[in-house]
Amino acid sequence: MTCLGMDIGGTGIQLGIVDGEGQILSLVSIPTASDSETLIGSIIKAARPLIDIHHPRAVGIGSAGRIDCANGTVLRAGNLPFKNEPLCRKLSDALGLPAVIDNDANCALIAEAKAGACADHLDALMVTIGTGIGGAILISGQIYRAHNFRAGEVGHFIYDRSGKPCPCGLHGCFEQYASATALIEAATAAADEHPDSLLSASRPLNGKTIFKAAADGCPVANEVLDRYAATLADGLNSLVKIFMPTCIVLGGGIANAGDALLSRLTPHLLPEAVIRTSALGGNAGVIGAAFLAMDSLSR
Amino acid sequence: MTCLGMDIGGTGIQLGIVDGEGQILSLVSIPTASDSETLIGSIIKAARPLIDIHHPRAVGIGSAGRIDCANGTVLRAGNLPFKNEPLCRKLSDALGLPAVIDNDANCALIAEAKAGACADHLDALMVTIGTGIGGAILISGQIYRAHNFRAGEVGHFIYDRSGKPCPCGLHGCFEQYASATALIEAATAAADEHPDSLLSASRPLNGKTIFKAAADGCPVANEVLDRYAATLADGLNSLVKIFMPTCIVLGGGIANAGDALLSRLTPHLLPEAVIRTSALGGNAGVIGAAFLAMDSLSR
Repeated sequence: MTCLGMDIGGTGIQLGIVDGEGQILSLVSIPTASDSETLIGSIIKAARPLIDIHHPRAVGIGSAGRIDCANGTVLRAGNLPFKNEPLCRKLSDALGLPAVIDNDANCALIAEAKAGACADHLDALMVTIGTGIGGAILISGQIYRAHNFRAGEVGHFIYDRSGKPCPCGLHGCFEQYASATALIEAATAAADEHPDSLLSASRPLNGKTIFKAAADGCPVANEVLDRYAATLADGLNSLVKIFMPTCIVLGGGIANAGDALLSRLTPHLLPEAVIRTSALGGNAGVIGAAFLAMDSLSR
Repeated sequence: MTCLGMDIGGTGIQLGIVDGEGQILSLVSIPTASDSETLIGSIIKAARPLIDIHHPRAVGIGSAGRIDCANGTVLRAGNLPFKNEPLCRKLSDALGLPAVIDNDANCALIAEAKAGACADHLDALMVTIGTGIGGAILISGQIYRAHNFRAGEVGHFIYDRSGKPCPCGLHGCFEQYASATALIEAATAAADEHPDSLLSASRPLNGKTIFKAAADGCPVANEVLDRYAATLADGLNSLVKIFMPTCIVLGGGIANAGDALLSRLTPHLLPEAVIRTSALGGNAGVIGAAFLAMDSLSR
């Protein structure tokens, strides 16, 4: 049995035919259009040939933003042109298949827990490190969504009690200090201060170029990353104390650094902390969305 | 059907016969002995007459400390003379009844979720404010314990990134700023600074005397409590973002202040935060332990 998984993000959309083992049989990527009608039209156009060839049984949608899983609606999404968009119904009607939806972090954790970094773990967390910090919670093998589908904001506990206001309504949130944005800001400041460093010569600075400069021996980049890892470990340790999961999976661009990130984290972690980087990377969303669809068929 | 619930704390032990509605039919309190053998002997002595009269079907034990629920053992407890103590087996053998055990915070939440402040809530948290800050997590109507029974340390996320070391292994933990200990320290400092204040005249300072001084119009006590409430709200808001529970129940001595505490918290809370104080107070442990025993019989 196969299902069609979709991963809808701010810059691109992936559609994939996925089998019961989480193998992607066919994958299509399209850009994210800037208005809702065009975006949905482009998804339908890309999905039809996949459906004609592979005959998936259902559609699973993973989307950025705030999702009402029960009603199949994208309530709102910072980087997507959706507002109270009944995406499930529209795609289901157009494609002639049942459809289910969840947020991107939940889909990624579903994939990692079935076929990835925390396969067979029952209590696990996903922490996605990007522009902000997102998350998802697996308890007793089930995604914990809460009554309003808004559980898992693991980047928004107060980490600096005297920190500055966060758009979320709190202040000093952990994501202000440990997101990819925060790492790049710290690296930019360090590069400005050391204009002759390899780090400074590695601009534009992003997760990849910062880790590359460090790997090539730049002491400035190494110090930036060591400080960043200590901060990230603070938050992961906090989540360990609260959840005591058997595994925390790191996702998002920064997690692509893999062992170069983990080896810096380890000295700062509690003995109980088991931290891994995503095994499925950029495909976790599509695979998890497809698993979500498969699960819905068996219920 | 009735069960015998026990609440074993550092200064006292309560034993109660509890019915299926959470009503306490008979309650006995004894002091906590300083060695393990005497302590267990005193529990057995107090339990026997209750059993002879009420014929409970099972024993539920709630204990401070770190508990191995599966093996029925108190691994260790700061305020109790237990070390790898097989308490379940010893009490079960001596009393001739099946026995189960859990930590005190989990028992309190079980009681509040069945017959107290968060009755019929499926996703709820207990935050107990005492010497430290403890907690318990209810997900989908079930206590979430984690593989090692150590989930729920909601007082040990890092709240002050540059804060001082905590015995838990982290630093700047939330409990350092929002425990009853922290409140009393802040009140003592304020009383020392304002020796003519009603707060200063209210020594010895504890939750009760501080709230009393504030209620009697002491501006120094009121300022201390307002600052404390803002700090406590920071942590509760953080837990709301992570769990999005339908209710957080506050327990421990500070929660006895009831509306005097809640009214100070409210201005600082997120709109999604539903915070209540314990409805069962000091009896929650006994009632929850008895419910735990009833649940074990029906499994």
